[in-house]
Amino acid sequence: MSLVLIEMKLKKQSNGVSIMRIIIDAMGGDNAPGEIVKGALAAIEEYEADILLVGDKERIEEIAGKNLGHRVEIWHTDKILTMRDEPRSILYEKSDTSVGLALKLLKENEGNALVSSGNTGALLVGSSIIVGCMPGIKRPALGALIPFSNKTLLIDAGANLEVSPENFKVSPENFKQFAIMGSIYMDKFIGRKNPTVRLANIGEEENIGTPLLKEVYKLLKECKMINFVGNIEGNKMPTHCSDILLADGFTGNIILKLTEGFRTYIKDMLKEALTNDVFSKIETLAEKSSFKKTYSLFDPEYDAAPFFGIKRLVLKTRGNAHAEHIKSAVRQALFLLKSDFTDEIERQLQDKK
Amino acid sequence: MSLVLIEMKLKKQSNGVSIMRIIIDAMGGDNAPGEIVKGALAAIEEYEADILLVGDKERIEEIAGKNLGHRVEIWHTDKILTMRDEPRSILYEKSDTSVGLALKLLKENEGNALVSSGNTGALLVGSSIIVGCMPGIKRPALGALIPFSNKTLLIDAGANLEVSPENFKVSPENFKQFAIMGSIYMDKFIGRKNPTVRLANIGEEENIGTPLLKEVYKLLKECKMINFVGNIEGNKMPTHCSDILLADGFTGNIILKLTEGFRTYIKDMLKEALTNDVFSKIETLAEKSSFKKTYSLFDPEYDAAPFFGIKRLVLKTRGNAHAEHIKSAVRQALFLLKSDFTDEIERQLQDKK
Repeated sequence: MSLVLIEMKLKKQSNGVSIMRIIIDAMGGDNAPGEIVKGALAAIEEYEADILLVGDKERIEEIAGKNLGHRVEIWHTDKILTMRDEPRSILYEKSDTSVGLALKLLKENEGNALVSSGNTGALLVGSSIIVGCMPGIKRPALGALIPFSNKTLLIDAGANLEVSPENFKVSPENFKQFAIMGSIYMDKFIGRKNPTVRLANIGEEENIGTPLLKEVYKLLKECKMINFVGNIEGNKMPTHCSDILLADGFTGNIILKLTEGFRTYIKDMLKEALTNDVFSKIETLAEKSSFKKTYSLFDPEYDAAPFFGIKRLVLKTRGNAHAEHIKSAVRQALFLLKSDFTDEIERQLQDKK
Repeated sequence: MSLVLIEMKLKKQSNGVSIMRIIIDAMGGDNAPGEIVKGALAAIEEYEADILLVGDKERIEEIAGKNLGHRVEIWHTDKILTMRDEPRSILYEKSDTSVGLALKLLKENEGNALVSSGNTGALLVGSSIIVGCMPGIKRPALGALIPFSNKTLLIDAGANLEVSPENFKVSPENFKQFAIMGSIYMDKFIGRKNPTVRLANIGEEENIGTPLLKEVYKLLKECKMINFVGNIEGNKMPTHCSDILLADGFTGNIILKLTEGFRTYIKDMLKEALTNDVFSKIETLAEKSSFKKTYSLFDPEYDAAPFFGIKRLVLKTRGNAHAEHIKSAVRQALFLLKSDFTDEIERQLQDKK
């Protein structure tokens, strides 16, 4: 254990009630620490959770003012890992940054889950090496629910880029593991029985796409543990997607963010285009089920994405997270903790072996 | 020259007027030959163009019935290249398929341009090898205009997948050529002076993305022939995109088709959600400029994508093209022919050397 951890003297729960504690990387993302701290404070107002903020004590206290109650603690570091830093630096020269320390604190059971808006690559490497992968899992992945006509789990939503050297590349076996973990999640947590899996590709036929995707297709087709129903093209995704949409991390990131971009674009255009009269009429229609769908598309639930395949719960929020996203990530962390997300995935993975 | 071409006895224009002739691969795509033939017939109704349909004579005549006038000719073949066929087969065992023959006919000046909805990879290989690349161009690319808040040229929209072996991979130099050709097009044909170029990526920072994209960024930054303004993420694309959006063919295909998918999705939802009363009110608002934008987003112009870097004009329409897409592709081919698309790109490429 590092010196840093030996030196830790965090106040322990003493009231006998088991209150979840969420560790938050206060310095990660475009709007840190301001929006992160505000989100954390909003979360403790509403939810039964304690918060451990990891970051620059002085700046955090300045933002929080008098609102820092006994349910928020700060673990100080003035070191920051930026978007420009190499992911692997989190293991070495950047291990004492807010996200590096936050991962160690999670590993040492100083909190039940970790929320970060920072460098995704570093969070992937740090989660895998510092916290550790579930037995048999070779690469973890981010899984994000996206608001297609049916809510779809996009996995990998941005963790694994294709990186050289060769042995770091995402392999067909990795895709298969993403599909299995995603299927467990959609079945157990979202209530989709025998959930369907599709592979994001440039055509529907079997022998299509990059050489990697052709291999992935073969492997998925043979896998008895999932309900693989074939490739899917971009134009079918919003309206005809499966329960699980498989992609490599780069493609997943493009799909996730372009979906967000269109939501914003169309919402803005409609607001601008419709007169107040029409717009208010639309709002009275909001109870119609079909319109509810449109409406929820326009008002994302700010879902954070959990890492699938990591032993403890790590949630990534968008890089440009605002306070509402952080608050929502805490809510989501509490939901997943209460429903034993990591244990359930690990148990089912073992059962399915 | 192949026997097939020596045997050709196509009727030549004899009236002294130079009428453009568009070669259409009648058997390519999901809805061939029915929709392709209908689209071709619709095109000659409206535009000053002759058509050369390449495909199964009997089936084409059956679809066209009595509508086959003297302005449509058929070049018969009953061989078809499918989506499952390997792209390079177009040079060998599949060279006598409709798309293989269509490319030879274009090469031999039997038409001014070619439209196909078939296998994109085969069309890329066939265009490059049978018709030929412009001097200095290493890989051609598909360029598609997409309806973001400003019309954006997406290049490569789906031609170049990352394919092994190593020497077939898309290189940073290829991306640079895509950017240069795209810039010429947006300047000369769409009237965007000093058009901006962005690279599709998972973050805005310089040192981000796959190793390939990091290299591409460096090369684009140094290139004096384009106005490169950095990376762009998916969430910014619809509202804050540049004039040119650079991507590899796989990513480009996902972006292009997901854009189409969202258009359909939102349009359907709004139609379902709004009462006729409100919907008709919206239509009366269609003249408002901001609403026009929304409206045009919902009603795509069915743009076909030309290959950039091929000596002659080759247009790819979507795989699921209907008659209206084919008709629109003919219109677009005529526009590009009249404005000397290929000559202009080639000339400017030489000037910029």
